[in-house]
Amino acid sequence: MAEKSMLVVSAHSADFVWRAGGAIALHKQNGYRVKVVCLSFGERGESAKLWRKGEMTVEKVKAARREESERAADILGAEVDFFDLGDYPLRVSDEALMRLVDVYREVQPAFVLSHSPKDPYNFDHPLAMHVAQEARIIAQAEGHNPGQKIVGAPPVYAFEPHQTEQCEWIPNTFLDITEVWDIKRRAIECMAGQEHLWDYYTRVALQRGVQAKRNIGITAALDIKYAEGYMRLTPAVTGDLA
Amino acid sequence: MAEKSMLVVSAHSADFVWRAGGAIALHKQNGYRVKVVCLSFGERGESAKLWRKGEMTVEKVKAARREESERAADILGAEVDFFDLGDYPLRVSDEALMRLVDVYREVQPAFVLSHSPKDPYNFDHPLAMHVAQEARIIAQAEGHNPGQKIVGAPPVYAFEPHQTEQCEWIPNTFLDITEVWDIKRRAIECMAGQEHLWDYYTRVALQRGVQAKRNIGITAALDIKYAEGYMRLTPAVTGDLA
Amino acid sequence: MAEKSMLVVSAHSADFVWRAGGAIALHKQNGYRVKVVCLSFGERGESAKLWRKGEMTVEKVKAARREESERAADILGAEVDFFDLGDYPLRVSDEALMRLVDVYREVQPAFVLSHSPKDPYNFDHPLAMHVAQEARIIAQAEGHNPGQKIVGAPPVYAFEPHQTEQCEWIPNTFLDITEVWDIKRRAIECMAGQEHLWDYYTRVALQRGVQAKRNIGITAALDIKYAEGYMRLTPAVTGDLA
Amino acid sequence: MAEKSMLVVSAHSADFVWRAGGAIALHKQNGYRVKVVCLSFGERGESAKLWRKGEMTVEKVKAARREESERAADILGAEVDFFDLGDYPLRVSDEALMRLVDVYREVQPAFVLSHSPKDPYNFDHPLAMHVAQEARIIAQAEGHNPGQKIVGAPPVYAFEPHQTEQCEWIPNTFLDITEVWDIKRRAIECMAGQEHLWDYYTRVALQRGVQAKRNIGITAALDIKYAEGYMRLTPAVTGDLA
Amino acid sequence: MAEKSMLVVSAHSADFVWRAGGAIALHKQNGYRVKVVCLSFGERGESAKLWRKGEMTVEKVKAARREESERAADILGAEVDFFDLGDYPLRVSDEALMRLVDVYREVQPAFVLSHSPKDPYNFDHPLAMHVAQEARIIAQAEGHNPGQKIVGAPPVYAFEPHQTEQCEWIPNTFLDITEVWDIKRRAIECMAGQEHLWDYYTRVALQRGVQAKRNIGITAALDIKYAEGYMRLTPAVTGDLA
Amino acid sequence: MAEKSMLVVSAHSADFVWRAGGAIALHKQNGYRVKVVCLSFGERGESAKLWRKGEMTVEKVKAARREESERAADILGAEVDFFDLGDYPLRVSDEALMRLVDVYREVQPAFVLSHSPKDPYNFDHPLAMHVAQEARIIAQAEGHNPGQKIVGAPPVYAFEPHQTEQCEWIPNTFLDITEVWDIKRRAIECMAGQEHLWDYYTRVALQRGVQAKRNIGITAALDIKYAEGYMRLTPAVTGDLA
Repeated sequence: MAEKSMLVVSAHSADFVWRAGGAIALHKQNGYRVKVVCLSFGERGESAKLWRKGEMTVEKVKAARREESERAADILGAEVDFFDLGDYPLRVSDEALMRLVDVYREVQPAFVLSHSPKDPYNFDHPLAMHVAQEARIIAQAEGHNPGQKIVGAPPVYAFEPHQTEQCEWIPNTFLDITEVWDIKRRAIECMAGQEHLWDYYTRVALQRGVQAKRNIGITAALDIKYAEGYMRLTPAVTGDLA
Repeated sequence: MAEKSMLVVSAHSADFVWRAGGAIALHKQNGYRVKVVCLSFGERGESAKLWRKGEMTVEKVKAARREESERAADILGAEVDFFDLGDYPLRVSDEALMRLVDVYREVQPAFVLSHSPKDPYNFDHPLAMHVAQEARIIAQAEGHNPGQKIVGAPPVYAFEPHQTEQCEWIPNTFLDITEVWDIKRRAIECMAGQEHLWDYYTRVALQRGVQAKRNIGITAALDIKYAEGYMRLTPAVTGDLA
Repeated sequence: MAEKSMLVVSAHSADFVWRAGGAIALHKQNGYRVKVVCLSFGERGESAKLWRKGEMTVEKVKAARREESERAADILGAEVDFFDLGDYPLRVSDEALMRLVDVYREVQPAFVLSHSPKDPYNFDHPLAMHVAQEARIIAQAEGHNPGQKIVGAPPVYAFEPHQTEQCEWIPNTFLDITEVWDIKRRAIECMAGQEHLWDYYTRVALQRGVQAKRNIGITAALDIKYAEGYMRLTPAVTGDLA
Repeated sequence: MAEKSMLVVSAHSADFVWRAGGAIALHKQNGYRVKVVCLSFGERGESAKLWRKGEMTVEKVKAARREESERAADILGAEVDFFDLGDYPLRVSDEALMRLVDVYREVQPAFVLSHSPKDPYNFDHPLAMHVAQEARIIAQAEGHNPGQKIVGAPPVYAFEPHQTEQCEWIPNTFLDITEVWDIKRRAIECMAGQEHLWDYYTRVALQRGVQAKRNIGITAALDIKYAEGYMRLTPAVTGDLA
Repeated sequence: MAEKSMLVVSAHSADFVWRAGGAIALHKQNGYRVKVVCLSFGERGESAKLWRKGEMTVEKVKAARREESERAADILGAEVDFFDLGDYPLRVSDEALMRLVDVYREVQPAFVLSHSPKDPYNFDHPLAMHVAQEARIIAQAEGHNPGQKIVGAPPVYAFEPHQTEQCEWIPNTFLDITEVWDIKRRAIECMAGQEHLWDYYTRVALQRGVQAKRNIGITAALDIKYAEGYMRLTPAVTGDLA
Repeated sequence: MAEKSMLVVSAHSADFVWRAGGAIALHKQNGYRVKVVCLSFGERGESAKLWRKGEMTVEKVKAARREESERAADILGAEVDFFDLGDYPLRVSDEALMRLVDVYREVQPAFVLSHSPKDPYNFDHPLAMHVAQEARIIAQAEGHNPGQKIVGAPPVYAFEPHQTEQCEWIPNTFLDITEVWDIKRRAIECMAGQEHLWDYYTRVALQRGVQAKRNIGITAALDIKYAEGYMRLTPAVTGDLA
């Protein structure tokens, strides 16, 4: 049987770590190939600490961000592609969209993770989800590059944004990441430029852990300490409702 | 390991057949114990054909409805309890609510099915879901009948209402019922008083089958012909997002 | 052909004047029988000016409100029934609900008007709509008082609440009341105890008139000066989409 | 009096048949001129069967799709314009938008039909509705091509998408197409490349027929067997609420 | 000038501590009188640890809960009234509602805090908010106990529920509680029976602190470490938009 | 202390007068610097009366609109920048977006006003709000034009659209403009080309005044006659909930 794979579409080069690092480490551990596409480096909008160092240029910031991101991906077990499309604002040309379609066709992901469809604090994030969905639809079309293997219908999940309620993001799926938490924390610590967020996202994982536990019932045998929340956007098809 | 079980809370005595007959037959076949609670017989509001026969009384209609319902349950493999609370309007006293709590405690369901939380065409339906949820919460409380085994956190699903869009019901879960379709159809045919609905719900199953197939992708090996749609109201907790 | 009729379910004894006076006068003029049910007199919550007179009792306030309401109904051409169920809070027993069902069966309305389903400023209003809908559903049931003529499926409209946006009330239907405006204004002026609202509702009618005109297009021949807005809750069935 | 007309804006060359074929045939029969604009042929994303034949090119697929579409339009009684803007993804330049404005000005439609404003399964569909609305607004502006006759305020309807609930599409209007069903079915059968959808959309029409009947009441004289559902996006202005 | 006051309507006897303890301590410090109404003790549904001790009765649990609650209120600076209406399920009679109206009339609160209007995990919570709003409306009515001083229009806020997103609760208002955090934490530690929640709600306060800081801008002089989130349900009226 | 300032992003050259004229006059009076950016003159879509004069060109209409707008701004006390990007449809290039970012950086607004995020009657309006938000986010980024003073987190408000309910616009904030009403009315009267709207917006101000008064309570000392409604899109951060 073919290796299973998953795809993460990240607006900036650190998003996949904070928001989906547990999913990446866990599925990697379970035999998945993990592909991450970073549409930009977040060089203008998410690198405040680097800019404050002085003597900075966009190229230097991008290099530093790439290096952090690659180390984190390495720890998590992911391959990363950097599309380098710029940020604040991110703009995605049809050419870049087709490059993402190619990734879908090559990776054949079992599921896809990206940002919440709405985020009033960050317009790059919803755009990343939009192109993740649009590329998926094109990758399903038999008339796009006929002869290539088309993509099935991989479920699409939105990972957790910074201010969930303002984004109308509702976690209908909790992923238990207790056993890979240490890996995620190590990946988080690669983000030297955003150290103030390390504890923030540790607390997020703990809160989601408590909630996940509550949603399986306190009498359940499974003990969940850390979790990630996801909003599944596409319906599930199943043979058992339990 | 203990037998698994499921619970269906049905406002009227036929709802569980049209709306959850496939889930019942399928899980029964897979080893589940299935408990159905019918809050009323639907004697006033859903028995038009019986009333038109003339010479009818409420008691006669209730008897006929009970008989149809029991035969259908038999075919599907479910145990049925009739609470006989009256319909149009259904009213649920706290005493009846506690009787439902007792069912939860006794059955210990792995999941629960009931009506959509909103239905402008039928006020008995949302009330059934409301008490299904309220009884579940009470059954979880350690201080309710201390000493009894409390209930965990069984997922709650809303099965398909008649006019889905008006009810703001969105199927985020499709259940493949292809292999038990014949059983469901036979159960449906017990409802002699509502023959006009037999083909309606057959078409519903076919449409949901096409949609379920589309949601796993046309390239998937699994062939789905009949399905039931469900709106899961409670978050899923999982160890794999595929 | 039988006379057509309409039904208005009003929480308090003045609501039908401010909110549906134009619809009543217009349909009356077009040959409809108009029935209004006032669930209460609004004696506690909507009679501030009367209470400030001093020497008041609930009975005196109710008598004054009834008198104003009857005069307004007379001008508009409506029959009024007062259920006298009390206000702030309005409470509707099943007995009162059945009395409303009887009205439906007797009146056989072609459509029904009541309050918006949500109103954070007034809990009596949504309750009135709730019972208007629940009574309609029971009146449709063949098993309720078998032998009586059942009700069809009269469209249900919510008339305009005081603070529309807070009530999530959206006018999807505008009624041109230009030709009966003078009648409505005269009925409004019967409400001596709420004189501060006369101009308020005149401005409402003018604003809705401008909006109605905009929704038929400025090039349309019809000149609309006054209108009432309604939120239709039930689908329309038609043979022409223009 | 001038001939009345209607406009359909279809993302791909078959959409207008499945989704609005009944409306077209019915209004044509009632004397309307019917104009259909197909923004693309659906050559990449909606022609799977054609591509599987092998030896295919985009041009061949487009030719086959055009031919099917024209035959269907002929049966229904519609004029079709093909804008040939490409699909998966559809992209609409301002030049194409202005061409659609010109159609509005020339056709002066009494109402407009297009896709649902949201469709997570198909990004071309919401875009078609978006430009249908944007072109309508521009066509209303006196400063656009001054001297031309401006457009009034034709109602806008969204026809039925494939998975209605996922699209947040709610049918607030049912069109009785019983008398033209045979015509619609014949038009549907022109779509040789999508034969699997013939029965799907026949079942849709039957289900909507049952629902339409329920919404006029089972006691109504009119017998409705087939219907189409529409979501009206613009308010109605009327002189009678029945 | 008269002392200002605030009112908190708490479903169970600990809710006001977790969810509004910071607001209470802060406003108390700023000169407000703080009144808390606990509708129940949460004796059945929120006292799991106490029940597990064995040898417990409802009366013993209620006494323990009352004692914890009073100590916490004391630390925060609030007066507490216990209505003792029972929990799981909470039921509020009209008599109890009128008792709450009396509290409004006596306290004349400048604003009111209660639970989120929706909570699928806890049906007592939305009911508490419902009666908090209904009592407020009745307290505004001149005809209710004429002669008493009526209540103005105190803003209503929903404090933070356990699983915010599932409750459709959106914090549109952040309260900086940094300077009173120690007091809140001490009050929290009175809740011996729910020690597992101490750190949970500490993390909540830290996360809301980060978000509050982000919403005033990182360049703002004010340093916020701990905050509480609120959803304001009623419009603000102001003379300055900054 | 530095002067405070506010920013208004207006799609067309008259919008800021009808919708935010009171806010401008009031804050000007209270010492604010007021900057207005008009993205277009509304020369095609909102100048019907001018076009009907005949002998008109786009340049002449733009000149007339600019003159009216400047006179109104003068009366209100605002500086106006005209971006002249065209209307019906408005299109905003990235270059224009960056020009707006520069305005943010230069003005350092304490709050921002623009259109409602949704408006089915006018697609230029939501686009204006979109770019107002996008420019604000970019202006906050340290990596955009490093060295410039970044912008904090100014609250964003949507002012009142023409048909509020269709736009899903809900006024959660009322601004009392009673004391500057005369100034706003004089500014309104500069709009010679849209005289039919003078009374419309006067009535809007009166209605919002009544509602604002109701939301502070009829017993409040403050008498409000005229108000403007705003939908605040960003959370408030406060130290007092009254």
